Amino acid sequence: MKKHKVIFQPSGRRGEVEEGKTLLEAAQSLGVDIEGLCGNKKVCGKCKVRIEEGYFEKDNIESGMSHLSPLIEDERKHIKPEDGPGIRLSCTAEVRGDVKVFVPERSRAGKQVVRKAAKELSIPLDPAIKKYNVDLPAPTIHEMTTGDVERVLKFLEDDYGLKGLVFDYTVLKDLQDTLREGGWKATVTVWMDREIIKAEPGFVEVAYGLAVDVGTTTCVGYLTDLTTGKVVNTESMMNPQVPYGEDVMSRITYAMTNPEGLETMQKAIITGLNEIIERVVSEIKKDGPHPGFAIDDLTIVFNTAMHHILLGFNPIYIGRSPFIPAVQSSLNIKARDIGLKINPAAYVHVLPIEAGFVGADNVGVLIAEEPYNQDDMVLVIDIGTNGELLMGNKNKVCSTSCATGPAFEGAQIKFGMRAAPGAIEVVQIDPDTKEPRYKVIGKTDWHSHLAKVDAKGICGSGIIEVVAEMFMAGIIDKSGRFVKDLQTPRVRQDTDGRPEYVLAWAEETSIGTDITVTQADVRALQLAKGALYAGAKLMMKKLGITKLERVILAGAFGSHISREASMTLGMFPDCPIDKVYAVGNAAGDGARMALISKGKRVEADERSRWVEFIEIATDPTFEKEFMQAMHIPHMKDSFPNLKALLEKTGSKVAIKG
Amino acid sequence: MKKHKVIFQPSGRRGEVEEGKTLLEAAQSLGVDIEGLCGNKKVCGKCKVRIEEGYFEKDNIESGMSHLSPLIEDERKHIKPEDGPGIRLSCTAEVRGDVKVFVPERSRAGKQVVRKAAKELSIPLDPAIKKYNVDLPAPTIHEMTTGDVERVLKFLEDDYGLKGLVFDYTVLKDLQDTLREGGWKATVTVWMDREIIKAEPGFVEVAYGLAVDVGTTTCVGYLTDLTTGKVVNTESMMNPQVPYGEDVMSRITYAMTNPEGLETMQKAIITGLNEIIERVVSEIKKDGPHPGFAIDDLTIVFNTAMHHILLGFNPIYIGRSPFIPAVQSSLNIKARDIGLKINPAAYVHVLPIEAGFVGADNVGVLIAEEPYNQDDMVLVIDIGTNGELLMGNKNKVCSTSCATGPAFEGAQIKFGMRAAPGAIEVVQIDPDTKEPRYKVIGKTDWHSHLAKVDAKGICGSGIIEVVAEMFMAGIIDKSGRFVKDLQTPRVRQDTDGRPEYVLAWAEETSIGTDITVTQADVRALQLAKGALYAGAKLMMKKLGITKLERVILAGAFGSHISREASMTLGMFPDCPIDKVYAVGNAAGDGARMALISKGKRVEADERSRWVEFIEIATDPTFEKEFMQAMHIPHMKDSFPNLKALLEKTGSKVAIKG
Repeated sequence: MKKHKVIFQPSGRRGEVEEGKTLLEAAQSLGVDIEGLCGNKKVCGKCKVRIEEGYFEKDNIESGMSHLSPLIEDERKHIKPEDGPGIRLSCTAEVRGDVKVFVPERSRAGKQVVRKAAKELSIPLDPAIKKYNVDLPAPTIHEMTTGDVERVLKFLEDDYGLKGLVFDYTVLKDLQDTLREGGWKATVTVWMDREIIKAEPGFVEVAYGLAVDVGTTTCVGYLTDLTTGKVVNTESMMNPQVPYGEDVMSRITYAMTNPEGLETMQKAIITGLNEIIERVVSEIKKDGPHPGFAIDDLTIVFNTAMHHILLGFNPIYIGRSPFIPAVQSSLNIKARDIGLKINPAAYVHVLPIEAGFVGADNVGVLIAEEPYNQDDMVLVIDIGTNGELLMGNKNKVCSTSCATGPAFEGAQIKFGMRAAPGAIEVVQIDPDTKEPRYKVIGKTDWHSHLAKVDAKGICGSGIIEVVAEMFMAGIIDKSGRFVKDLQTPRVRQDTDGRPEYVLAWAEETSIGTDITVTQADVRALQLAKGALYAGAKLMMKKLGITKLERVILAGAFGSHISREASMTLGMFPDCPIDKVYAVGNAAGDGARMALISKGKRVEADERSRWVEFIEIATDPTFEKEFMQAMHIPHMKDSFPNLKALLEKTGSKVAIKG
Repeated sequence: MKKHKVIFQPSGRRGEVEEGKTLLEAAQSLGVDIEGLCGNKKVCGKCKVRIEEGYFEKDNIESGMSHLSPLIEDERKHIKPEDGPGIRLSCTAEVRGDVKVFVPERSRAGKQVVRKAAKELSIPLDPAIKKYNVDLPAPTIHEMTTGDVERVLKFLEDDYGLKGLVFDYTVLKDLQDTLREGGWKATVTVWMDREIIKAEPGFVEVAYGLAVDVGTTTCVGYLTDLTTGKVVNTESMMNPQVPYGEDVMSRITYAMTNPEGLETMQKAIITGLNEIIERVVSEIKKDGPHPGFAIDDLTIVFNTAMHHILLGFNPIYIGRSPFIPAVQSSLNIKARDIGLKINPAAYVHVLPIEAGFVGADNVGVLIAEEPYNQDDMVLVIDIGTNGELLMGNKNKVCSTSCATGPAFEGAQIKFGMRAAPGAIEVVQIDPDTKEPRYKVIGKTDWHSHLAKVDAKGICGSGIIEVVAEMFMAGIIDKSGRFVKDLQTPRVRQDTDGRPEYVLAWAEETSIGTDITVTQADVRALQLAKGALYAGAKLMMKKLGITKLERVILAGAFGSHISREASMTLGMFPDCPIDKVYAVGNAAGDGARMALISKGKRVEADERSRWVEFIEIATDPTFEKEFMQAMHIPHMKDSFPNLKALLEKTGSKVAIKG
């Protein structure tokens, strides 16, 4: 059978696909998620993709110029002029040659296993913006020496004790009409008791803010009612910069090697955030010139590279020694100056960063988890595309960044995939038979012959589980090598003659091929966990401590791994297992806290300077620690309390949810 | 001879022109100034105009569709693609039908009889922006927790004691590159000891600011070296809003009656100011992304209507009762927010206004002349397109605005013209023969048969002189009526049977027709001077005084009228003639003072509120005062000291220059 090369953007997934397969089938076989609500019946129109190479709408298919089957009538009715050129339904277009395909955000399936969902926060509500009602008498001719501005300011001073306020220029422009439209009743929005950033006719109570977490891979926005502090809507999307580089360093390289690289990536993320803004306000009442106008405050966290690129700062200097960032402190930037389509007079509050690689996202974690208020010695691990560690207690807190690589996110793993429906995330392997059981995201049942779950791949937390189980079942040894001569068909050699473990047979999957865990996958995981462990060990040395009293797993990934699996693998130094817990997206929690509390902004500014950053890569003992940490520990040596617990309960303790 | 209608924009001058005349000849006959350096030899290309109606380049001239002679080769070589469509040389294109012609600013002749030239100011130099040199050690890897921003801020605090500074966002974006380009030596520009609005590599000393005076008719920009306080260049142009209305009220009406009217006029003035900015910096050293980038501060004065329109505030509310302005206080607006192409991080400081009709221009006059620091009772008259009065001393100062109409600017006067070359501005009439002598702008000699001066018309100050002289020579009486049966050919009847005085015979002029002063001209001048006089009288009543100790004539016009003529006509109440003097463009002086002195900004804010605005139109005695003030006073009654002075010196005292 003839095969063709198909590349999917923005994920970059690629592979050989048999001629005649639809793009949707190709996507499924390559682990690319495309929405297909109607089950390939060509009726929902949800699976639109844009063909970037290999297809011209006006092609004569007979000429062989087009690498896709021609557009058919059923597709045509779903494609609108505003979709732009090159759009096809992936359930219909068949591969007839090499093609490059872009999957728009809207067509990406399973985009939200709301891993970054918002939890309830309990801090006092004291947002940076407040709304004040103004009720003025209509002016008479004797007051022609007093402007509308002065009349409003006098009212705010007399009735609310607000002094020395200034108006944003954009608010000034419409103030006269606003006052008259409301019959001299109006509501002004005041930022930091300092500046008037909105004037609305009549009396308005509700106020909205948006907390934004820009990850290297995923961006989330939490629309928050600032009168209650509650999240009213959450929207997320893949970071639109992914096509320019999967990780931080490749994006910095892109900025360095392309003359317009920085601008291109800045524009991409701003456009993406504006889409989140538009979607997140879809269900609230909106007045004003554009949908996002209802949002009067915005806080944002991100790692240092995302910070620099989004703000248009050259990231080159954080990518090379001496790794100096443009700015450490928090910033308040007018939304209109960076093109975010909320109230143009609103400020975007950028949380401070800690050091070159420890960004505002980790400051978010810091103020959300407050290790500086703890008596216990705490380790906070935040694993996104990078791993960042905080360790300490009320006396001292250190931070560092570990180059874990992307294995924890399912990347560089043969059947790795994002945490989306169909991804294997829970695994058990019988030590005697070596037979596995597994669950996938989106289904509650374990896979069985009766309940097919149609696995697609393995997500980051699934990889941890399966490797831990492989070790516990004696499939791999403490060095990570496959044990030889096991009598099971589950362990076999791949085409390169290297061993692999079959987690799911082709007929159990939706991709039509066996899902395996390879020796290289195990190695990638060992490197990642070794970096984390070694980093934590060096911090303990720095703090002069020998044991941890608490371990907090932050981040989307952290909330989905099992603590047993992570301790089995030795991802972090020993700690009582009941003191290991997940807190979800703590970086996003920090952004939300800064949004609803001015005090938390001050705390972020102060504590981000107070935390001591430890550069582990330059530590002379790092390499030795790292080499040691690559191994999977003997439980009895390193985790006495885990072994005891497992013996006592006889089962794993779930920490999800 | 066949005649055609020709309209010139933006002046609006129009008239019938003989077929075959060139547009330049047509312009001269209608008092429109077009540059013609080469003396109509078709070689300089300076006299370009744009044909707005009646001409199509591609017309077949034989078809009769085009109302101009066809484009000839000599013209074609001067016309460049960037000139846009419809461009002709006015020395070459001949009238063959009705046409509407726009005269671009560059083609306007005599645009600068530098009436708004800058005089030396003597106030302490303390501008709002200051430049500081920063000299940093190159950072090492041990400083990766400190950003470039924090390093600069620490230096400014340690070396200059500047605390709590913030960076403008646009400056942040380039800071890293700037520091490295200058080898860690840089110069930062700090606004109000509060905000960093520029960072330049290396050590820079020079700093520029621009003081802007936006008049209803003319705009001027004074480029100022902020290290010396001296004006290094001055540029002016006609206010590009003139096509939308000659005076304040007609522009307010334009904004009210056209949906895009306000935006159109705002855009016009911003574009115009950007042209001034580009021209005014032409001779200074420029780095940065655009020519005006060297300008780091800008102050601006204007009347209330120009203020509102330039800032995009709806002017409708200042045009109707109760005449409430959008804002009274001064404003600081980022240059980029209103589109002025100076340093985008710079602030535009808008001086405060006093009341509905007494604008920031009068606040400029106020802080330049400081009546509030005087022991003498002073009257300051600022005559632009409107007349504004300040009266008082250190105890109290009142202000008001008089609707003088445009007579003082030469408009609505039959042969009135702007103060440009060829305008009659000095006149003497022999009381016995009624024969006049006159001088025109641009020539030093009196007109005589030997020295032809080619008069074109009469400027505003010329009108005052000629009417005063007509009264002194017994040609008109104190009511302004022509005296009957004078035995001189100079007084005759016009085509409507109304008397007129011939100031220049056709053969003495460059326009080929007699220049006359009509009964209507005298009436227009009486109305204007009556409004001023009545306003001053009401202020004196308000202040409880009976005489003035000093009269200051401000404004372009004020520096060119003779004090004898103005006192003869009774433009203001009696005052010792040696205490009447002209100060030039005091509004512009105020803008310049605010530019070079923070203290003057504070003074403007405080004094603009301290001054008492008097609404004269609603005063029940205004009409009676106004009727009386229309008359030309008997000198012996009203101006004993003028009469004595004239008798003593036997000649007029010049106050020009």
